[in-house]
Amino acid sequence: MTGPTTRAHFGERNAQNTMEIFERLESNVRSYCRSWPVVFDTARGSRLYAETGQPYLDFFAGAGTLNYGHNHPALKADLLEYLARDSIVHGLDQYTTAKRTFLEHFDQLVLRPRGLDYKLQFPGPAGNNAVEAALKLARKFTGRETVVSFTNGFHGMTLGALAVTGNSMKRGGAGVPLGHAATMPFDNYLDGQTPDFLWLRALLDDSGSGLDKPAAVIVETVQGEGGVNTASPTWLRGLAGLCEEYGILLIVDDIQMGCGRTGPFFSFEEAGITPDIVTLSKSLSGYGLPFALTLLRPELDVWEPGEHNGTFRGPGPAFVTAAAALRAFWADDTLERQTLAKGERVRRRLDEIAARHADAGVAERGRGLARGLVFDEPGMAAKVCRAAFDRGLLMETSGPEDEVAKLLPPLTTTEAELDEGLDILAAAVDAARGLDAPPAAPAEPGRLAGTR
Amino acid sequence: MTGPTTRAHFGERNAQNTMEIFERLESNVRSYCRSWPVVFDTARGSRLYAETGQPYLDFFAGAGTLNYGHNHPALKADLLEYLARDSIVHGLDQYTTAKRTFLEHFDQLVLRPRGLDYKLQFPGPAGNNAVEAALKLARKFTGRETVVSFTNGFHGMTLGALAVTGNSMKRGGAGVPLGHAATMPFDNYLDGQTPDFLWLRALLDDSGSGLDKPAAVIVETVQGEGGVNTASPTWLRGLAGLCEEYGILLIVDDIQMGCGRTGPFFSFEEAGITPDIVTLSKSLSGYGLPFALTLLRPELDVWEPGEHNGTFRGPGPAFVTAAAALRAFWADDTLERQTLAKGERVRRRLDEIAARHADAGVAERGRGLARGLVFDEPGMAAKVCRAAFDRGLLMETSGPEDEVAKLLPPLTTTEAELDEGLDILAAAVDAARGLDAPPAAPAEPGRLAGTR
Amino acid sequence: MTGPTTRAHFGERNAQNTMEIFERLESNVRSYCRSWPVVFDTARGSRLYAETGQPYLDFFAGAGTLNYGHNHPALKADLLEYLARDSIVHGLDQYTTAKRTFLEHFDQLVLRPRGLDYKLQFPGPAGNNAVEAALKLARKFTGRETVVSFTNGFHGMTLGALAVTGNSMKRGGAGVPLGHAATMPFDNYLDGQTPDFLWLRALLDDSGSGLDKPAAVIVETVQGEGGVNTASPTWLRGLAGLCEEYGILLIVDDIQMGCGRTGPFFSFEEAGITPDIVTLSKSLSGYGLPFALTLLRPELDVWEPGEHNGTFRGPGPAFVTAAAALRAFWADDTLERQTLAKGERVRRRLDEIAARHADAGVAERGRGLARGLVFDEPGMAAKVCRAAFDRGLLMETSGPEDEVAKLLPPLTTTEAELDEGLDILAAAVDAARGLDAPPAAPAEPGRLAGTR
Amino acid sequence: MTGPTTRAHFGERNAQNTMEIFERLESNVRSYCRSWPVVFDTARGSRLYAETGQPYLDFFAGAGTLNYGHNHPALKADLLEYLARDSIVHGLDQYTTAKRTFLEHFDQLVLRPRGLDYKLQFPGPAGNNAVEAALKLARKFTGRETVVSFTNGFHGMTLGALAVTGNSMKRGGAGVPLGHAATMPFDNYLDGQTPDFLWLRALLDDSGSGLDKPAAVIVETVQGEGGVNTASPTWLRGLAGLCEEYGILLIVDDIQMGCGRTGPFFSFEEAGITPDIVTLSKSLSGYGLPFALTLLRPELDVWEPGEHNGTFRGPGPAFVTAAAALRAFWADDTLERQTLAKGERVRRRLDEIAARHADAGVAERGRGLARGLVFDEPGMAAKVCRAAFDRGLLMETSGPEDEVAKLLPPLTTTEAELDEGLDILAAAVDAARGLDAPPAAPAEPGRLAGTR
Repeated sequence: MTGPTTRAHFGERNAQNTMEIFERLESNVRSYCRSWPVVFDTARGSRLYAETGQPYLDFFAGAGTLNYGHNHPALKADLLEYLARDSIVHGLDQYTTAKRTFLEHFDQLVLRPRGLDYKLQFPGPAGNNAVEAALKLARKFTGRETVVSFTNGFHGMTLGALAVTGNSMKRGGAGVPLGHAATMPFDNYLDGQTPDFLWLRALLDDSGSGLDKPAAVIVETVQGEGGVNTASPTWLRGLAGLCEEYGILLIVDDIQMGCGRTGPFFSFEEAGITPDIVTLSKSLSGYGLPFALTLLRPELDVWEPGEHNGTFRGPGPAFVTAAAALRAFWADDTLERQTLAKGERVRRRLDEIAARHADAGVAERGRGLARGLVFDEPGMAAKVCRAAFDRGLLMETSGPEDEVAKLLPPLTTTEAELDEGLDILAAAVDAARGLDAPPAAPAEPGRLAGTR
Repeated sequence: MTGPTTRAHFGERNAQNTMEIFERLESNVRSYCRSWPVVFDTARGSRLYAETGQPYLDFFAGAGTLNYGHNHPALKADLLEYLARDSIVHGLDQYTTAKRTFLEHFDQLVLRPRGLDYKLQFPGPAGNNAVEAALKLARKFTGRETVVSFTNGFHGMTLGALAVTGNSMKRGGAGVPLGHAATMPFDNYLDGQTPDFLWLRALLDDSGSGLDKPAAVIVETVQGEGGVNTASPTWLRGLAGLCEEYGILLIVDDIQMGCGRTGPFFSFEEAGITPDIVTLSKSLSGYGLPFALTLLRPELDVWEPGEHNGTFRGPGPAFVTAAAALRAFWADDTLERQTLAKGERVRRRLDEIAARHADAGVAERGRGLARGLVFDEPGMAAKVCRAAFDRGLLMETSGPEDEVAKLLPPLTTTEAELDEGLDILAAAVDAARGLDAPPAAPAEPGRLAGTR
Repeated sequence: MTGPTTRAHFGERNAQNTMEIFERLESNVRSYCRSWPVVFDTARGSRLYAETGQPYLDFFAGAGTLNYGHNHPALKADLLEYLARDSIVHGLDQYTTAKRTFLEHFDQLVLRPRGLDYKLQFPGPAGNNAVEAALKLARKFTGRETVVSFTNGFHGMTLGALAVTGNSMKRGGAGVPLGHAATMPFDNYLDGQTPDFLWLRALLDDSGSGLDKPAAVIVETVQGEGGVNTASPTWLRGLAGLCEEYGILLIVDDIQMGCGRTGPFFSFEEAGITPDIVTLSKSLSGYGLPFALTLLRPELDVWEPGEHNGTFRGPGPAFVTAAAALRAFWADDTLERQTLAKGERVRRRLDEIAARHADAGVAERGRGLARGLVFDEPGMAAKVCRAAFDRGLLMETSGPEDEVAKLLPPLTTTEAELDEGLDILAAAVDAARGLDAPPAAPAEPGRLAGTR
Repeated sequence: MTGPTTRAHFGERNAQNTMEIFERLESNVRSYCRSWPVVFDTARGSRLYAETGQPYLDFFAGAGTLNYGHNHPALKADLLEYLARDSIVHGLDQYTTAKRTFLEHFDQLVLRPRGLDYKLQFPGPAGNNAVEAALKLARKFTGRETVVSFTNGFHGMTLGALAVTGNSMKRGGAGVPLGHAATMPFDNYLDGQTPDFLWLRALLDDSGSGLDKPAAVIVETVQGEGGVNTASPTWLRGLAGLCEEYGILLIVDDIQMGCGRTGPFFSFEEAGITPDIVTLSKSLSGYGLPFALTLLRPELDVWEPGEHNGTFRGPGPAFVTAAAALRAFWADDTLERQTLAKGERVRRRLDEIAARHADAGVAERGRGLARGLVFDEPGMAAKVCRAAFDRGLLMETSGPEDEVAKLLPPLTTTEAELDEGLDILAAAVDAARGLDAPPAAPAEPGRLAGTR
């Protein structure tokens, strides 16, 4: 560019040193860019394109934020129209036509068909806002402080959410001790012999246990960041039953697994449970725009007006794309059935890969289109993801020791794309284990040239 | 609408009961909508339009989020183009062309001209993310826990930010005691006799004072939510000097007052200080899109990669509008000079109003285009804002007892619009105090009909 | 008495209402006096005498404070001589001849024969002072905050000690949330199937578990207040090994079980472990005088001079009786062998009682002369203790639901006295279960008349 | 001694190295012994004797624990008789004749003459137990967490008490952040211009101040450890009035200043206030025995039975000496009048010393027989105390920088002894400032030989 006071030229590149300014100006905290040292420019569906034109198949989907792919045309059309007509972009918690449209869609396409009567709180633009609001409300409603969380749970980086997050490196970033939380074993965490909730139930039954009666339990049905650990429907029902029995609120953090990632709109539907509070974000806007929701049973709605607030609680563009996404994908069960079928397709292929590498302790995990390959060998999952990237596939690692190569393709990824990605993955595992020929040249740049 | 599975018709109204669904589905926590019981639909510049077509002059600007007005054409053009070409909308902390463009603009138009060498952390989409990151970093860097905040400071609703926020109702929403913070008197808080920092300096000088050595001080230069309380340049310099003297980090929360609200880009420029950490959000994207920044002196950048993360840290649309806004408004000092001039214009008129109501203890406060009228009589500011709304002007109250009628017009508001709004305000004060004739009929709907 | 300005006449009784002043002036927090509504006056060995002359056999021993019985003649002689010659009664942490004598005794009779090289901290007069000092030191030494405690552990009522205490009623008295602690299952707490430390080890092995690395573990070898729950030597060795493996300090709280209660001087000797920190109090002075010790491995002694202080850290009388007790009871292994033999005698008899009431789910528990009878039926243990009191035997309940009748006779109780007490207990259980004849008349008053 | 298994010979000395065992076995935390490197053996009245026979005049009194001097004959007689007849030494919270006698004395000699209707809680043996119980009760009663404390307040080393203690070195020993407390300026702490309670009142009046409404205020009338800072009666009345006005409980920690140190039994009597809760310890037993009390207004007595407990809550010996002390010293106002007169005598002499050293910024402080000389020059107070010790006078430093030489002579110190000590002090100040001849030889050893 000739200078910032003139028109920006997106997509033009500074031939010499396209990444220098990131390294110079961005904090060391940046992370994904270290694994994928390219500058992305455009995207559509399940493909991203670097500014060189180099395409990448996306099995990452913005860490689960792009369940409907990049820049879905139906959502894009509504968004462009909304913006073009000078609609309300920023609305705090004022009433707007866009919010009303979203509420109508959410009511008719999500709540009513599932027999749910949640009230909606718009807690701020990010998942951590939804979690913070959920924790605050649970504590205010019950008058208790402790929240039970689970090993390898991930709920966000703000101080309240971080206290119920397991990762020690991220916890250490707080700079203060994190309190008012108690960690419990997630499903299948221990030796496979210990009965579910043996420990939690013992603590709750025993007035001398040292666990102060909890306000709430917060749980993910599949722990995406924690290693693609899945809670079985039985375990989830057990947890819901335990919460009801002891008068503890059940919060399902569906930020990554909701909006269809595991098949149904809510990931807990399969278990047949109804949480007291649900958090949603990531794919909620459908277009990658910041947006979050805290759903609460009506009797829990003890908030005073304004007791929790925030600047970005009324994002018109996100209301619009979220409503469009509900209309496009959740008016019937097509997407849910397709996701389950695609999930099976991925599972079968991952099982094959795992079987091929059985000598190295490789196993498949997951549900729906949240899948992972877990590797016994330290560092192997990262090697695999690097090899996949070299071959044009974006995947990230997951789990406390980064021991899982995680697959979160957009739900809209075609079967052909899934197969293409899985082929790359299979080759990447071979490569990472030193069993292969050098990678083939990546696909030619410029595939999406027509749109640029 | 005929049903959510068909195309949404924004702007169409359900004649019978346009607000029923908000009241039925939204949590009680909603607040602004209670003061302004209309459904907003479109906006441009300093005007919002209800779905009835009724226009409202905006002296609220999304609580300081819309410093450049609603849907500014220059920003809109870039945004539409960006979206139309399927650019990256959601990018976590990957490198993208949009982020690079933003970095280049911020470097060349903000940092370099001011001789600043901050590194940029993208902490998440909301101001509270910027604050949480600032607090975490300050604690991690210093190895200390306590953060000094000020009476009537406002920094956000997440647990870390809430601990340094003064408002007791909002603090009560936490449901747990808030710790690791110590409150100090803001400028001019006490009796007007007590020397600045007498108490804080005494605490720091005395190893028996009971104040654990602080990691940081967090301060707003003008407390927007806390009552439009202004810190003088002298006081800010005193605070900066004290921080340097005692080895305490200075965090300026410029979320509401930055981006030109008080005149210069950073509100602390007038004082000639350089904080260790600065938080920005609200008007940073320029278009009302969720976006936030934490700026840090390079030597403070002790983050581990990924130690603080979050889903919405790479918002392409916000990068684009933010860069466009910098190009449109910060390539020279035109906006700054205009804002100062407009601020004076507003101040003079508010002084007149205050003088007219001197018997009722009315006074003017503020800096730049952050202004307030403070009323001695409990409830009077709310009455005034209600009367202003009835006359087509949007203003909110501020301060611990809602004792201030706050004016945050877009900086792009014309002088004519300012005068129009101030006329309404003058009438509203008269009305609220029972000194007036009934309000004139509001302006005709449909002014912006051409754009709808 | 004729009035408080004249000489006090201890042992004289106010015939009308001997208890009125307690009820009128003492806080509701008083507790034991509610179970034993008599006014005690004198005591010797294993007998207490009410002011009526009514004797009571003592299977309570001041909650484990009187391991050598009441007013042991050898200790008494030294104490009286010490006081008579105007020795130092109160010495803060000055050097005194009495403290030197105590140190010499403790070194030669306790530390050296056991190959221990602990340093001694005099942390204050009560067990909670010893615990608070231990926790502070462990945190200061490691730079970590979390301390692992165990279900039904009891460590005291001050805020630090209370945070590692299990009992919910006592925790609730804090009035603030208790933090920096994590509760773990004590030995045999779960289902008898779960391997020892399965959960703790999993948490420590997993950097995503949500347990911040602990500074220390605090444990009792037998939980006296928590229900006479015994940790096996194997479990204790496992815990010590785990602490060493993970670099966590091991604190054994030997306040109730030390000083010979389970046989050896330290209750952990049987397990063959060497804790990093040991707390002692209760029977340490041997005479019921307030006294406490925190023992620490020399390399942990990172205290600054005066960093932990307190008024009653140099109690001359307690130094003297403690030294006398060591000389009288710990110069050889006679007491240890006798305690183990007596413990077996008690165990056998309790087993008989348990067998007789097998239909009611009665079982024996304990080690050495810390024993308990646990009852399935709620309230039964309290009934048994009440029936025992009616028959002249003092025993208290224990456990989170007061489900255990606890036996802590002085170690010096003769076999005949043990049998006498166990006969009463057997009758009390029968009575409490409705299987008996009315209680026989208690023994005649006045046995100790010669001393009064 | 010939070995610890034979009779202890108190007072015999090991000629070679009498202090080696302290240095070898005691933790580095020991402190007073570093200033006074002798081994004390006996004491009577206001004199201590080292084992060499060397006498020391005591202007320290066990840090205020020995208001009636060492081993007062009247108390000693009762104590020896009590022990000789095998009375109850350790009684938890059982009823005992000794406790009843104490209650009767306290009721008739302390409470009734002053029109007080406090209930008594025996919270454990140490002052920190009294403070912890007070804080817990205040929080439980009010349902609030924050306790307001004052700069340079000292309340104890347990975690709850430490949080309201000012000293940073001692706070640092906690190893965890200390919370639920807010520090405020003590009387005359600021510039002498700032009106009393300007800041606290502003915080309480302002719902946006960031101070959560406190449960209680805890205050000393004279801060003994904090530098002999005195609160004026006016300030104390202002504080009591403020507490009443805002519904905050007033806790006076009278552990060091109660029992006559400032003249009256309670140090707050002069101000004419009635605290809600009072803590007593130190001189309460009158003989240096561990003993503490928490006094509470009857309506605050919301404790559950056993909600706060502890092993050493029923110390028979302390009940006896405490009752004897009340009878000996508080049956009329003789002691109070004498203390005030002696205090004046001390004050006059200290003023003379201060005047002589006016060039060096020396000033007098204090009330009753709690007095101090404050020195501007760093390290000077310690030098003075060292010089005093060399001349046979025991005094300690006080204040956050050890800037005060503190005088706490027993109240029973004769005028001649006071003059003797003040002569030594005057010489010690001269010496420390290099204005004197070498010290005269100390008094001959063996003065109290008849008692040994």
